[in-house]
Amino acid sequence: MNRGSRKTEIDVLVSEVGPRDGLQSVDRTMPTAVKQRWITALAGSGLREIEVGSFVSPKRLPQLADTADVVAHALTIPDLTVLALVPNLVGARNAVAAGTRALTMPLSASRAHSQNNIGMTPEQALEQVGLVCELKAATPGLSVEVGISTAFGCTLEGPVDEDWVIELAVRAAGRGADSVGLSDTTGYANPAQVRRLFTRLRAELGDRAGGAHLHNTRGQGLANVVAALDAGVTTFDSSQGGLGGCPYAPGASGNIVTEDLVFLLESMGLRTGVDIEALVAARTIIGDGLPGEQLYGHVPDAGLTKGFQYAKVD
Amino acid sequence: MNRGSRKTEIDVLVSEVGPRDGLQSVDRTMPTAVKQRWITALAGSGLREIEVGSFVSPKRLPQLADTADVVAHALTIPDLTVLALVPNLVGARNAVAAGTRALTMPLSASRAHSQNNIGMTPEQALEQVGLVCELKAATPGLSVEVGISTAFGCTLEGPVDEDWVIELAVRAAGRGADSVGLSDTTGYANPAQVRRLFTRLRAELGDRAGGAHLHNTRGQGLANVVAALDAGVTTFDSSQGGLGGCPYAPGASGNIVTEDLVFLLESMGLRTGVDIEALVAARTIIGDGLPGEQLYGHVPDAGLTKGFQYAKVD
Repeated sequence: MNRGSRKTEIDVLVSEVGPRDGLQSVDRTMPTAVKQRWITALAGSGLREIEVGSFVSPKRLPQLADTADVVAHALTIPDLTVLALVPNLVGARNAVAAGTRALTMPLSASRAHSQNNIGMTPEQALEQVGLVCELKAATPGLSVEVGISTAFGCTLEGPVDEDWVIELAVRAAGRGADSVGLSDTTGYANPAQVRRLFTRLRAELGDRAGGAHLHNTRGQGLANVVAALDAGVTTFDSSQGGLGGCPYAPGASGNIVTEDLVFLLESMGLRTGVDIEALVAARTIIGDGLPGEQLYGHVPDAGLTKGFQYAKVD
Repeated sequence: MNRGSRKTEIDVLVSEVGPRDGLQSVDRTMPTAVKQRWITALAGSGLREIEVGSFVSPKRLPQLADTADVVAHALTIPDLTVLALVPNLVGARNAVAAGTRALTMPLSASRAHSQNNIGMTPEQALEQVGLVCELKAATPGLSVEVGISTAFGCTLEGPVDEDWVIELAVRAAGRGADSVGLSDTTGYANPAQVRRLFTRLRAELGDRAGGAHLHNTRGQGLANVVAALDAGVTTFDSSQGGLGGCPYAPGASGNIVTEDLVFLLESMGLRTGVDIEALVAARTIIGDGLPGEQLYGHVPDAGLTKGFQYAKVD
């Protein structure tokens, strides 16, 4: 059964980041045609949003140098939100020129991480958010989301001040961001903190409070999802096979695994629109493009439970 | 720092089941002296309760045939609750004769699993609970806890009726059990279900509602811990290195990992009394006794977060 084709309503948006966050962390390049086939399969499993690449210098991330071609293909897939990461105005202009209409920008709360990751201070990155949001006036349908990186702690700086995280989020919204989410870039978050910060974020930003980008570095990823759900979060980033992490944060690896996340949500009665078996089948395409690449996830090994039922449409 | 030696109060009791649940799932036997050294190291890390073995037929579980010797050693460790599993009255008598004063009995909600696991119907197993509880009259200090196995689903039967699970728990308490917990023997639980069932259990049994025994078969273990905490659960079983599962439930493997559980709880501000680095160091002893045995866990690989702080004593 391909649930994606059924145009069901969903309760939670699972935003697949494997083709961007996953592939940028691998030290070899997946051929463009394989990326395109993988994205088609991911969308075919029912995923509604895929972050397909980054508009950054090909010298910095040669693995994503073909992002414009990947975007062009992804835009042909019906009912798919094609998201691309842009670090600054230059990247955003390239993304828009390639047809992208959904941009995501990182804004790191940790000064050391911000410098390492995008070579800017948080204030400089905020400036870029403002400039990118100005593109919206001339580009119908353009949306800009911001993700506050290292929102829960940083491998370089340790604990990150929560008031500062919320302040940055508010400032990013003030610069015109359509939504602002929080990212556990380095696998530091715990459920109490996730609940606290997302509750504050929603109190400050209302409908413009964005999703959760959580990592599984210390095995806490899905525990943090439960806490975020309690705080009202309805968008979660994840990566097929847990591919990727953040190459500029030492020791940080392990996006939460899309397969296990979808199982969690559907088991809890939250509709994702994703067919787990079709999703698991798409894993083989990663192996076609990156032979022998290590993939993670428990559900692909254990399978669905006997008598498993997807969340019901009301 | 050995936090265990500091006699701190704790918020959550982590009950280590590796020496019983872990070792019974391995198809070779850890030498008795290594088991004893491992238990000493686990207790030394601050763990307050360890399930050290089973009083069952050595033909059935030769890996645990030395349980009496292991109990005798564990009883010499100060401030440690030495728990042993007994399936029936015969096992309980042997356990008491060996000096054990804390017994745990499995009572499976799934008829098929009950038959496979302990060769009895649930009703027959309840009968044994009653007989074992009668031993308390003549054995000062004896406590009997019951764990409802397959409380969240069964690899053989699929979904398990929730009313029946609660009914069994109430009946076990009626037979004299000091506490009745719920076990996700086969890795079927989801957080919504965990919250629902433990909330009902506590409503029915009050202070005699027991702990959660959760598995990580589908990667949902710590997510379920968060839900159980929300429902007021304060005792969790886990296994060092995720060793073990249930050999009589096909496809069921993977206790939650003690190292990752303790990190979760302490990060959330919940005191366990356990020193994570001392706990991680104890992993090497498993390798001494079972060379090459696969261990799980993220925290042992990723290490503590920079600036990590244990939950504070008020």
